[in-house]
Formats: sequence, structure tokens, C-alpha cells
Amino acid sequence: MHPLPDHTPSARYERGLDKLREIDGAAGERVIAALADIAPDFATYLVEFPFGDVYSRPGLDLKAREIGVVAALTALGNAAPQLKVHIHGALNVGWSRTEVVEMIMQMAVYAGFPAALNGLFAAKEVFAERDTADLP
Amino acid sequence: MHPLPDHTPSARYERGLDKLREIDGAAGERVIAALADIAPDFATYLVEFPFGDVYSRPGLDLKAREIGVVAALTALGNAAPQLKVHIHGALNVGWSRTEVVEMIMQMAVYAGFPAALNGLFAAKEVFAERDTADLP
Amino acid sequence: MHPLPDHTPSARYERGLDKLREIDGAAGERVIAALADIAPDFATYLVEFPFGDVYSRPGLDLKAREIGVVAALTALGNAAPQLKVHIHGALNVGWSRTEVVEMIMQMAVYAGFPAALNGLFAAKEVFAERDTADLP
Amino acid sequence: MHPLPDHTPSARYERGLDKLREIDGAAGERVIAALADIAPDFATYLVEFPFGDVYSRPGLDLKAREIGVVAALTALGNAAPQLKVHIHGALNVGWSRTEVVEMIMQMAVYAGFPAALNGLFAAKEVFAERDTADLP
Amino acid sequence: MHPLPDHTPSARYERGLDKLREIDGAAGERVIAALADIAPDFATYLVEFPFGDVYSRPGLDLKAREIGVVAALTALGNAAPQLKVHIHGALNVGWSRTEVVEMIMQMAVYAGFPAALNGLFAAKEVFAERDTADLP
Amino acid sequence: MHPLPDHTPSARYERGLDKLREIDGAAGERVIAALADIAPDFATYLVEFPFGDVYSRPGLDLKAREIGVVAALTALGNAAPQLKVHIHGALNVGWSRTEVVEMIMQMAVYAGFPAALNGLFAAKEVFAERDTADLP
Repeated sequence: MHPLPDHTPSARYERGLDKLREIDGAAGERVIAALADIAPDFATYLVEFPFGDVYSRPGLDLKAREIGVVAALTALGNAAPQLKVHIHGALNVGWSRTEVVEMIMQMAVYAGFPAALNGLFAAKEVFAERDTADLP
Repeated sequence: MHPLPDHTPSARYERGLDKLREIDGAAGERVIAALADIAPDFATYLVEFPFGDVYSRPGLDLKAREIGVVAALTALGNAAPQLKVHIHGALNVGWSRTEVVEMIMQMAVYAGFPAALNGLFAAKEVFAERDTADLP
Repeated sequence: MHPLPDHTPSARYERGLDKLREIDGAAGERVIAALADIAPDFATYLVEFPFGDVYSRPGLDLKAREIGVVAALTALGNAAPQLKVHIHGALNVGWSRTEVVEMIMQMAVYAGFPAALNGLFAAKEVFAERDTADLP
Repeated sequence: MHPLPDHTPSARYERGLDKLREIDGAAGERVIAALADIAPDFATYLVEFPFGDVYSRPGLDLKAREIGVVAALTALGNAAPQLKVHIHGALNVGWSRTEVVEMIMQMAVYAGFPAALNGLFAAKEVFAERDTADLP
Repeated sequence: MHPLPDHTPSARYERGLDKLREIDGAAGERVIAALADIAPDFATYLVEFPFGDVYSRPGLDLKAREIGVVAALTALGNAAPQLKVHIHGALNVGWSRTEVVEMIMQMAVYAGFPAALNGLFAAKEVFAERDTADLP
Repeated sequence: MHPLPDHTPSARYERGLDKLREIDGAAGERVIAALADIAPDFATYLVEFPFGDVYSRPGLDLKAREIGVVAALTALGNAAPQLKVHIHGALNVGWSRTEVVEMIMQMAVYAGFPAALNGLFAAKEVFAERDTADLP
């Protein structure tokens, strides 16, 4: 890989890493680690732009941001691993399992029943993981 | 069109119509009216299932449901008229313009910058419509 | 989970369950069962709206409805489990394996060769399941 | 543009042009004409592969092929002009307006209500065009 | 709008603006201007992340980056304005009209004929705009 | 399966098979073989149209064609097996691993971070396969 042009550890990176840990916990850190040997700069961008820039913005609270991501990833239907990370994220920032299930169900209206079904089965896996780890 | 099998005015329909008016206001009623000559039964389903069944559920409040729909329709990027209806809807149920803009911006992370850009331009049109009508 | 508002066993549900069994057979019932612990109300909606309302409508026969679903799910390409259920469904309501393969192949034109290839490999799995079960 | 390598008028082209006219009528020929100055070889491929190869195959009749295309294009939701051409096509090969409307409505289940709504409004435009031309 | 947290003019922004002008020319600057009243921070991000970070990276030359974007936006099929901007961009960085047309045609294989057709018609509009402006 | 109408071995097929082997190597031939029992005619079309017609065209060199396909399949996000085949393909026709990674990373801008992440993990698998086979 080439060196990244004038890219140094920054307030954006620090802020992003804190936010990533707050939202996605261990699942987020595993994604960063998995990128280390293939695209380490992409891991940097992932911390900096989505988490350091976007999630850190005032204007919309973190809880609202996270339920929107669950809705969008359920509707898109082509990013199952990321949907699971953000179902964890939504629960981590204070949504209940019932609320997450409700949002996924609602996507049947906007993206069809298969998208909602696949979202519900992703939620089922996440809930089982959290039961094992004794998380809400 | 054929008659709908054993389909009578119902609590679902009444509840759905109230909910449709609460969320989408005049924009929702225009959709219903536009279906009258092509697929009147579909207008009935639209009132009954999304609004009478799904939006009327407890377990997730209406405000959260509506911001999730804005997120999902922005991300899907293939339903511009419905996105505009639900940007109105999100504002109608209590989100501020800033909050709606923040959610749309965030979709750049999950569905790409073009999806977010097109969502922002839809919001711009909606805000102009509401300025004319003196709505928040 | 919260109780569903004024939702009682209904003609829609009964009619939907009959239709679900006619089209999807055991595969459909497995989906319903898999929802029992995560979103039982969604199982109810799945029986009522797609099967009790839509598939039960006059105006288009069941065979035509089912080949359209195979076409659409192949083209969408993000709902592999549901595509397999509906390939079973298309065969259950009277299409031949050749006809199903033809429809999937045709999706190369509308959604690209990868979508068609993935649809054909889904069909291959379904045909193998049916050979084992001695189904046409 | 470069000349197409060893590509000569062929049975595939002749067969495809007949099929294109049978299915899409004037709308199909307008697409071919619109490609003449930008990508004439693409017009050739469009006649040869979808129409000369795929639609001309035995194994699934033309009527079934065409209703599947209406289903798929409604579900994909990103090809409005082509959906309109194929709603014409479905009517041209023998489906009734009611049947076409039913198939589009059904896509609400598989791709969401916005996709179905946009499909119904496309159908409405097509039906108006055909009323003017005194077509069924 | 809220102030952006610790966000100051930066090397990323300067580098991004240069790159944006090099690739997209006036079309890129119009997008930035159009965001000024609805989401000015998003204009900043658009300059900084895609152009200041990604396009400015070594490891893949700008010409290759730009033809890939034309391919991707044609295939996605839900971002017509951005596709037009990047067809301009591809021509601006040295691809010929024939090469751009070839890449768009090829997307018929991966995303279907409708996506390719809509891409070709976008190219036709761009070429006409450039003819007027006496651009290659 | 039915016989294909007047379809004989042709220059298109021979040319396509050569091109398929040049681009996709063993991975391409495995796809052809996997179609033999379910849709042998589709294997023929796959050789003839994408490889015999499109990839064989002058006007855009093979290297450019292949990086565009990697971009498009990453962005579409619903064709993981084909993306892997074409990451192999891009490396086979002369792109470096770094260049392929750069193109995939760039898709974060156009299709979102989840699409890019899933593309990077596909690349990681391909690179491991090639390490085992001692390929660049």
C-alpha cells in the first residue's frame, strides 16, 4: 500500500474512535482489525468520516441516528454483516429489542417483506449473541 | 377491476386513515386520490396495512418510525416522490428541518454520496413547499 | 412484544394460511415458525396481507402471480432464501422446471448476468431438494 | 464508433426484430432509433440478444415472459422508461389491463409500496396513451 | 444549522477543491453551490472526503478512478444527475467519447439492458452539452 | 431443456471462450461447468454475448473494462461470487492488488461504506487464494 498523503492522527480520528466504541463496541473494533492487512487506510477513513465527522455532529442525537441506520440497512438488504453490527449499535445506545424489531418490521412497507424477513432473522442472531454475553 | 373478496370498511381502515392524515397530511390524501381510477383496492391496502396495521402499533413511537422511513427512502434512492411525502411526514410529527437534514446526510455513509445528495435536494424542495404554506 | 391492537383471527388470516400452504407448502410454514419467537405479529401480517389479501385476489391467476415473483426476486438479487421458497412455489402451482429456468435466464436481460446466474444456482438447489423428496 | 468485429446481419437479428415489433411495437422501434447516433452497435445487441436469443426461445411462452418483465421492472424501480415499454408489451401480447395492474400491485409485497405505487402510476400513463390510440 | 465540531479549513479541503475542479469542472462547483442553503457542511464533506481523501490517493491513477465511477453509477441506475457529472469527468480526465460509451454498454452485462440504455441516454445529453460548449 | 433455435457453434462462441479464459481463467470455466446440468444454453449465451460480443470489442481496452466491472459489482453489492471472479480477472489482465483495492475503496463514495467493506473482504479472500496458487 502507498502512504496516505499528509494524513496524521487527528482530532477527527480520536473523536471517531470514541464514537465507534460507544456505538458498535467490540463489533466495530473487529471490523477495524479485519481491515489491517488489506486496506489499513480504509480503516482510518471509516473511523474518521462516518464516526469522527458524521456521528459526532450535533443536530440529531445518536439514538435517532442509529435507528435510521437499522432502517436503511434493512431496506437496502445487501449488507447483512453491517446490519448486525448496527442492531448491536441500536441496542447499545438505548433502544429496546422491541423497538428495533418494530423498525425492521416497518421496512416491509418500504422495501418489501423479504427485506424485513432477512432483517428479523439478523436481529434474531444478534439477540442470541447478546443473551450469551448477558447484554440487554 | 374485480370486487375485493370479503373486504368491508373496518377498524383497520378507519385507524389507518386517521394515521395517514396525521403523518402525511394532504400529500397522503393526494396519493389515495391518484389511485382511484387505476387501482382503488391498492389505495385501500395502503391505508390498511402500512397505516392501519404497522404505523398504529405500539412498541415504537411515531416519531422514530418516521425518521427511519426518511433514512430508508434516502438510502434506496428509487422512490423520490415517496421520500418527499415522508420528509413532510417527519416534519409533521415533530422533527426539525435540521434533524431531517442530518439523517439524510448520514445516508452518505451507508448508501453513498449520490443517494444523500438526491435526498438533500428532495428536502430542499419540501422546505420550499412548506415555506410557501407557512409550515415549520 | 406488545399485543397487536384489535387484531383477531379473521377471514383474511384463514384464507391467507390456506393460500400460503397451497403455494409454498412446508417452506412457507417454516418461515412462519421461525418468526414465532422474534416477531410473531409479523408472521400474522405475512399470512394476512400477501397471502390473505394479495394472492387471494381475482383478476390474475395464481400461476401468473407466482412466475412474476420468481422474476422479481431473481432481478432484485438480495433475497436468496425467499427466491428459493418461490421457485418451490412456482413448481407447486404448475410451472415446469424448464419454464422456471427460462424465466430466470431472461432476467439476465433486465438485471444482468450475475443476477441470472445466482438465480439459476438457487434453482439448482431447489431442484435437488425436490429430487430427494420425489417432487416434480 | 468502431466497426463491430465480424458482425453481419443474421438470423438472430431478423428474428429479434420481428419479436421486438411483436412485443413492443412502435415503442421498441423508437428505442432502436434513439440509439442510432450514440451507440448503434448497442441497438444491434438489443435486437439480437434479448429479442433474437432470449424472447425467441421455446420453453416458456411469450405471454409469461412479458408478465415476468413487468414484475421485475416494477420491483427494480430504477427503469421507468423500460417499465412503460413493457406494460405496453404485456398488453400487446394478450394480458388485460386488470391483470397488469394486479401484477404491479403484488410487487408491494416483494419490493415495497413505493415501488408498486410508481409502477401503478406508470401503468396509468400507459393506459392513457393507449386510450388516445384506441388500443386495448 | 449547527456549527461543525472543530472543523477548520484544511489541507484536505484545499486538495479536494483542486481535485473537484480538475475532474468535474463547472458541474462539480454547481453541486457545491446548490448545497449552500440546505446543507453547507455536506458540501464541505463532499470536497474533503471523496475528493480530498479518496481521489487524491496514489495507488490508482485518476483516469482509472473515473471510468470506474462511470461504470458504477451506470450499474446502480439511481443517480442520474451524478452519472452525468462523471461522464463529463471521465471526458475531462482524458477518456474519449467512444471509450465512455463502451464502458456504459458493458454494464448491460452486469446490471441489465435498462441500466445501460439509461446510461447511454445520459451520455447523449452530456455529449450534446459539450458540443454546445465546444468541448471534446 | 429445449434445443436453441438455429444456434450453431460460431465465431462469437470461439472468440468468447478465448476471452473468457484470458480474463477469468479457471474461475470462468467453473461457472460454465456449473451451468451444464441446469441451463447449458445460458452457458452458451454467457460465452457469446458478454465475452464474444462485448469484451471483444475494440474501442476500450480490456484492462479498463475489467476495472470498471470490479467497480460496478462492488457498488451493486448483490453478486459476491461474480465480484470475486472479476477481482481475479482484474489481476489476470494486469492490475496490481493495490490498484484493485483502491477502486473498491472508492466505491464507499458512490455506494456507501458497507458495499466497500464487503468488496474489500472479497478481495482479501481472492488474494489468499492467489497466494496459495502463487499468483500475483
